[in-house]
Parts: sequence; C-alpha cells; structure tokens
Amino acid sequence: MLAWMPASPALPKIYLAGPDVFLPNAAAQAQAKRALCAEFGLHGIAPFNPALDMSLPAQVLWRAIYEDDLAMMRESDAVIANLTPFRGASADAGTLVELGWFLGQGKPVFGYSNSAVMFAQRSRQQAALAEEPLAGLGIEDFGLADNLMIQGSLTLPLTLPPDGASRPFDSLEMFRRCLEAAAGWLKG
Amino acid sequence: MLAWMPASPALPKIYLAGPDVFLPNAAAQAQAKRALCAEFGLHGIAPFNPALDMSLPAQVLWRAIYEDDLAMMRESDAVIANLTPFRGASADAGTLVELGWFLGQGKPVFGYSNSAVMFAQRSRQQAALAEEPLAGLGIEDFGLADNLMIQGSLTLPLTLPPDGASRPFDSLEMFRRCLEAAAGWLKG
Repeated sequence: MLAWMPASPALPKIYLAGPDVFLPNAAAQAQAKRALCAEFGLHGIAPFNPALDMSLPAQVLWRAIYEDDLAMMRESDAVIANLTPFRGASADAGTLVELGWFLGQGKPVFGYSNSAVMFAQRSRQQAALAEEPLAGLGIEDFGLADNLMIQGSLTLPLTLPPDGASRPFDSLEMFRRCLEAAAGWLKG
Repeated sequence: MLAWMPASPALPKIYLAGPDVFLPNAAAQAQAKRALCAEFGLHGIAPFNPALDMSLPAQVLWRAIYEDDLAMMRESDAVIANLTPFRGASADAGTLVELGWFLGQGKPVFGYSNSAVMFAQRSRQQAALAEEPLAGLGIEDFGLADNLMIQGSLTLPLTLPPDGASRPFDSLEMFRRCLEAAAGWLKG
C-alpha cells in the first residue's frame, strides 16, 4: 500500500513515470524515489502498486494495472518521467503515453535521462539492426537526447548527465537533479 | 500546404500519427492516407507539413515542427496512430507522446500495427541486445501487441494483421481496416 500512503494535502503530487517498474528491486526503487520527493517537499506517487492481485488472468490484470496507473495520474499534479532509453532508440513506451497524457491535461511535465548518448546515434544503432527497407528510413537529428515530441513537451529542459557520462540505469542522481528543478518550478 | 487543405466542417478531423514521416516517400504516404480518409468521409490531417522552412537552424526547426504538430493535434477530433514497432520493442516515441496527448484531452484514440510479432517477443529481442544489468529487467508479457498503456488507451481494439502475418512497414492495409472501424465508431 506504499503507493497510497497519506500525504499533506498541501504537498504537490508527482507521478513517477518510468521503466523503473521493470527493475528486479522495483519496490525499493519506488520507495527511494518517494523518499527523495519528501526531501524536496513533494508527494511522490509511484506506479508500483503491491495491492494489485498479480494472480489475476493476464487479460484482466493488464487492464487493472492500466486503470490503476491512470487513477494515480489523475490525482497527480505533475509528472517526472524517467526517459532513460529502454529497449530501443527512445524512452519506455508506457512512460511516453503517460508523458503525453500529462501534456494533454495541461499539467507540468518534467523528465530526466541517465543516458548521455544522443537520440540520432541510438536511432542509427537501431536502424542498423533493421532489415531493408526499414534501415533506409530517415534519422531525426536535431542534436537532441530524444524524439522532438518528448523534448517539446517538457516544462523545463531535460535533465541529463552534466559531464556527458551515462549513469547506470537505476541511478537516482539525475532523478534527484530533476526533482530539485521541478520542486523549484512548482513552488516558485 | 496539403496538410492544411480545406475540408467540410462537418467531416471529423483525424490526426494521422506515425513514423510515416521518416519514409523516403513521406509526402506521398501522407497523401495516400488523406485520400483513404476522404473515402471514409473523414478529414485526415498528416503531420507532414511541406510549408515548414527546413533550412532553419536545428534548434529552431525542431521546436517549429513540435508546435506545428501540436496545432494540427488541437484541431483534430481523434487520432489514428501507426503503432507499427519502430527502432525498438515498441511504437515510435513521438507517436506515443501524441497518442497520450489525445487520451489526456479525452479525444478518441485509434491505432493499428503492421507487425504480427507480440510485444514480449520484441522486448526479449531488445533485452538480448542490452548489456547487464539491463538485460535482466522484467519483460511485460500479457500476450499483447505492445505496452499495456498503449493498449489501454485505445477506444477500439488495436487493428492487427488478422492472419498473423506481418505486413510491410509502409503497407496501408491495416490503416484502411483501422480507418473503417474508426469511421464507423465516429459516425455511429
């Protein structure tokens, strides 16, 4: 029930989107993110809900998770998205749908990535794996860290490793930097 | 200026999201999709705007494209997203942000994929390419064609090859099926 722990109604609620849910230690990662949020006077809501009955049939369970996530998003005031590339040239698919939802709702969107590799380079790596004619498709190269629709949606610039060195996938260093900037924006 | 051609105000406007913009024949593909929309009594709006000044500096151009796309999305009543996997386990990143935006706006979301390969299989292929510890992360396997946040957002079930055989990346066969279902829903 950690995802639903009570918070002061005065604290802005931040939805913690990201592929963190696929980590072997997802519960601990969610807890660490919530603790950092509290440090900055924010109430973190992580889409990792141990109250869900994981023994449900797959076709019922996935929709229950979807509805559960959407309920958490609705009660959140903003999103901090972990946009670290995940199984492809770009950020995690579910995270991107959620980011777009917040943009469509007119709520602030913040994001970070632990990767220092640019989008065009990752796109070329993926294109090289593809068969023809898919390999011949255009490469989006604006010198950005990910697709321009992601970049454009951000309320503040994407938080990236300032030294150009990628951090481990589960590092919370960039999350912390992003959180600090988001907290400043939300309280300013 | 094809993207802005006048339409009857009575026709529902459909935003045609997808990585089609990266095709070598993107303009022709956009025109083919718009023609199919017209066939079903819909006004297709494709995010391929030849009026944009592509000679602008990259850091100005990407935001101009973003704003241009968002303006087209705002005037659209619904989205048909090409969710064919693109450079990774999932659909194109920009398309997913746009899909999420329509969901957040409460507008109908329709989608199709030309791939008959399930999400879990594509995820495993991508995980196999990753270095440790990224390779050890969880695989989302609900027997779905893509991430559950995509599936949950759809107004109608995802249109997929009914015979289990993937279609070429630029095939419009599944688009046409999806369009027919969307038109029926929008007019029903």
